[in-house]
Amino acid sequence: MSTVATLSEHGCWGGVQSFHRHDSAEIGAPMQFSVFRPARADTARKRPTLIYLAGLTCTEETFPIKAGAQRMAAELGLTLVAPDTSPRQTGIEGADAAWDFGHGAGFYLDALRTPWSARFRMESYVVRELRQLLIDEFDADPTRLGLFGHSMGGHGALTLALRHPEMFRSVSAFAPICAPSQCPWGHKAFGNYLGEDPALWRAHDACELIRSGRRLPPLLVDQGLADKFLAEQLHPHLLEQACAEAGQPCQLRRHEGYDHGYYFIHSFIADHLVHHARLMTL
Amino acid sequence: MSTVATLSEHGCWGGVQSFHRHDSAEIGAPMQFSVFRPARADTARKRPTLIYLAGLTCTEETFPIKAGAQRMAAELGLTLVAPDTSPRQTGIEGADAAWDFGHGAGFYLDALRTPWSARFRMESYVVRELRQLLIDEFDADPTRLGLFGHSMGGHGALTLALRHPEMFRSVSAFAPICAPSQCPWGHKAFGNYLGEDPALWRAHDACELIRSGRRLPPLLVDQGLADKFLAEQLHPHLLEQACAEAGQPCQLRRHEGYDHGYYFIHSFIADHLVHHARLMTL
Repeated sequence: MSTVATLSEHGCWGGVQSFHRHDSAEIGAPMQFSVFRPARADTARKRPTLIYLAGLTCTEETFPIKAGAQRMAAELGLTLVAPDTSPRQTGIEGADAAWDFGHGAGFYLDALRTPWSARFRMESYVVRELRQLLIDEFDADPTRLGLFGHSMGGHGALTLALRHPEMFRSVSAFAPICAPSQCPWGHKAFGNYLGEDPALWRAHDACELIRSGRRLPPLLVDQGLADKFLAEQLHPHLLEQACAEAGQPCQLRRHEGYDHGYYFIHSFIADHLVHHARLMTL
Repeated sequence: MSTVATLSEHGCWGGVQSFHRHDSAEIGAPMQFSVFRPARADTARKRPTLIYLAGLTCTEETFPIKAGAQRMAAELGLTLVAPDTSPRQTGIEGADAAWDFGHGAGFYLDALRTPWSARFRMESYVVRELRQLLIDEFDADPTRLGLFGHSMGGHGALTLALRHPEMFRSVSAFAPICAPSQCPWGHKAFGNYLGEDPALWRAHDACELIRSGRRLPPLLVDQGLADKFLAEQLHPHLLEQACAEAGQPCQLRRHEGYDHGYYFIHSFIADHLVHHARLMTL
């Protein structure tokens, strides 16, 4: 019997946008996620499915409300899924103390240090539990799963796809944290969640993973040049350099006048969905 | 010198989404509004401009964040404007007591009863002050202004266009309150803002205005059939009936499976922009 509760359903672009809650074994607590399922005549076939990982402070609602992705997903027949960005209400001291660490800031890794390690297991949650749940209960085609995200979630998309290459057929990112080992957000999160061993940091750093020989499907990355986090936190030039040196195909598009927010994502979301759909039909 | 402050600007679909604050003479306090201006080569010409009136509890942010209208506005070259839904922080006792009256619920009329009449002057704010400000400072073409809205804002779009037919070239609505004299939201708002004189209520009721001989440009109205407010509050069948009896062109589209929220609006917003653009080029 399904343990997934449906919190709400909304007609959208001929399909259904829905919100769900389930008891997560990996997290040890309830987790919420959102799903957009386009209309289709054929109910027998498994569906190509994109998982979107959101950024700091966001929830499972941010992407469906702000990104405007449902139009093109309906056109292309893609299911869209957005998990929350961390466990919630963990009761861990300090988990609400900052906007860039703890609740709303899971960084898509399994924490190794106490007290975080008991609950902050977003890597296993996404690649094991949520992925399997989508296959079992939301008709996701395990051979046509894509992963993308924004900022912290762009970091998540890159690193989870690099660490689990067999799982994802297509990858893209908006303004990702490309080299968390070299920026303040990453220092804070990795130091607290992983500790101080540089080898552990490298295992969750997209640039380092590419340098170590890991590969991705041909990558699409969009970055706004009016993004206030660009210089200090994001470092797309390091991703570009790592990809160039490793022979990893990467289209990095820089956009004048666009900032870090969802008006930027909204403007280029359709290109990302087309990118994923193309790779899934290859 | 302009008294309009720019709170933020965001690149969006090749244009700019911005948020503004100004000291409103009509309201007697600061008011905020949002503007999307598409990119264009020609800076000399005045622009066709659509004013969107949002529903209960919304602000000037709701439409630009949730409706996904910028894509089609960029394509059609339309400026989009969304004012807040009421004066804010008025200090009037009871203005925060309910979600369907007072702050966030101005009903796009000039209140006649104290204490509301001093500040709740959304009709004059929209049709006089904001309209003139858009012409003076945001390149709005006074001969190509359109008006649309959602729920309470659909009521606002219909009634302001009916009461000021010379001002608006095109009108449409999502799930409007069609006959506020005959629903609980309208009873509460009209009773408190206007008093108990039925003639005053009729002057702000779209169905009554059409019945009295007022006319609109050919009207487009979308209504979801899974809208939980449909039966008690919205009464589109009364609008349909009033238009049919009066010979007022009205395309009322009913959509199975769609509710009262922005996933519904998002799904049909492009049709509305095309509707306005067509009427503006006639």
